[in-house]
Amino acid sequence: MDAFEPRHPGFAEQVRASFGRQRFMGFLGAELVDVRPGACEIRLPFRPELGQQHGYFHGGVIGAISDNACGYAAYSLAPANATILTVEYKLNIVAPGDGDVLIGRGTVVKPGRTLVVARADTFVLKGGRERLCATALETLMLLLDRPDVPAE
Amino acid sequence: MDAFEPRHPGFAEQVRASFGRQRFMGFLGAELVDVRPGACEIRLPFRPELGQQHGYFHGGVIGAISDNACGYAAYSLAPANATILTVEYKLNIVAPGDGDVLIGRGTVVKPGRTLVVARADTFVLKGGRERLCATALETLMLLLDRPDVPAE
Amino acid sequence: MDAFEPRHPGFAEQVRASFGRQRFMGFLGAELVDVRPGACEIRLPFRPELGQQHGYFHGGVIGAISDNACGYAAYSLAPANATILTVEYKLNIVAPGDGDVLIGRGTVVKPGRTLVVARADTFVLKGGRERLCATALETLMLLLDRPDVPAE
Amino acid sequence: MDAFEPRHPGFAEQVRASFGRQRFMGFLGAELVDVRPGACEIRLPFRPELGQQHGYFHGGVIGAISDNACGYAAYSLAPANATILTVEYKLNIVAPGDGDVLIGRGTVVKPGRTLVVARADTFVLKGGRERLCATALETLMLLLDRPDVPAE
Repeated sequence: MDAFEPRHPGFAEQVRASFGRQRFMGFLGAELVDVRPGACEIRLPFRPELGQQHGYFHGGVIGAISDNACGYAAYSLAPANATILTVEYKLNIVAPGDGDVLIGRGTVVKPGRTLVVARADTFVLKGGRERLCATALETLMLLLDRPDVPAE
Repeated sequence: MDAFEPRHPGFAEQVRASFGRQRFMGFLGAELVDVRPGACEIRLPFRPELGQQHGYFHGGVIGAISDNACGYAAYSLAPANATILTVEYKLNIVAPGDGDVLIGRGTVVKPGRTLVVARADTFVLKGGRERLCATALETLMLLLDRPDVPAE
Repeated sequence: MDAFEPRHPGFAEQVRASFGRQRFMGFLGAELVDVRPGACEIRLPFRPELGQQHGYFHGGVIGAISDNACGYAAYSLAPANATILTVEYKLNIVAPGDGDVLIGRGTVVKPGRTLVVARADTFVLKGGRERLCATALETLMLLLDRPDVPAE
Repeated sequence: MDAFEPRHPGFAEQVRASFGRQRFMGFLGAELVDVRPGACEIRLPFRPELGQQHGYFHGGVIGAISDNACGYAAYSLAPANATILTVEYKLNIVAPGDGDVLIGRGTVVKPGRTLVVARADTFVLKGGRERLCATALETLMLLLDRPDVPAE
């Protein structure tokens, strides 16, 4: 992957502030642990409320973390005063979400003026070892001069 | 779409029991309101913890409900004593998740012996009107003679 | 699906002219047999050059017809003097492409100002009976005031 | 990505023979230029019959090469006397197919006993420079003890 130039010097703060406004991330217990230009990492410790019928991370949780890993990787390249929307994503779950921590790592594939394509690899950490759990490919849409906060 | 024949007379109970074991659905507050052979409907009332940065249903929540709507539509056609896994899904979010209730309606496209393809249309209900919010296309894998409960 | 209002009275001619400019469709032998607002149908007779290793329609051919069925369903709702690009698509192949004619039927799911979401069901016709072969979900981007012809 | 162990010492011959049986690849003019365990590269020179309405590689051609790059990367890890089917794929087209040669490079993400997940990055070569044109994520199904030739 190429290195990307951020378009906003305060990109990391802009990403962290947006993540902080997503009540659902706090509800899950997810944490944004790293932001770089075109990349980010999100971690989520397991608890039983996040499980599916076998007691592993639910596919919807894996999807949410993968979607957000793509989204904030993409948003790290946005100019100031922009917001971003998920247009669509595709997620392959390649192993059960059996682990103590879910780790989503998103990277930008192609930054466009309007559309951004990103991918995420999402891992489960168990007994100190990471295992690939899912991979996602996502399209996002940048909205310029549109606040990334609730409409009044 | 065709009508489908269930392979298990107790299909509805099997689906409801599996849904009930998914702690994550209870954590979100989602309810399985209908199961028929090859179809199901899931509803989830909004609350702020389910929101993204603009205060609408988070894309991860929309994905989780869409995934499960596909999954339980597919599982309704499973034989007794089988379980089912999400192989992959693709989700297009076509409108913001701005509403009081999220409604996921899944239907089977193609039931196979091993793989099942399903789709879901997910709506937001606002002021009594439904609006299409997302559409998903998903592949699932049936595992026969494998319990749909946590491994001991 | 809803009925859609075309934005260009000459929508059918605009669609047919664009299809006619796609050399690849002629190379395959595909024909656009129907265009309505938000929908179209494409047919392609089998010949051995379109086969994969088992002698059925190649997945790439199924993909090409499905992609174009989505694309021209979407383009039927474009204003005059616009062009359209495929952003992405996902295709599930649900049965082998074993038949005499491949029939792609595209319909618009959500027409937006910039992005259009469409789906296509693609069938194989064999011995007079149609069988579902593939289903696709696609995102397209409308480019306004951009000619749908080669740049000079 | 990890290195993969082939399960069949004659994996490269098995892949090349299958590619050679795909009449559609010859019809397009595509060539399999490299096969390694879990990876392959396919090249296709441009000619006008492969074009869309602007005269670039048609999305269906890009899809066919991307699909096959994933498929033969996956098939390189198959045992002897197996065949492989595309279950589904998703393709993002990130730049117009404007170039002299299309180059699809597929790699396996996750080899499973039944299902294999692969991705492909597809480039256009123009004036000696490669540019990313599309990226695909695909699911394939291995069929053991099933010949990779037409049924008699």
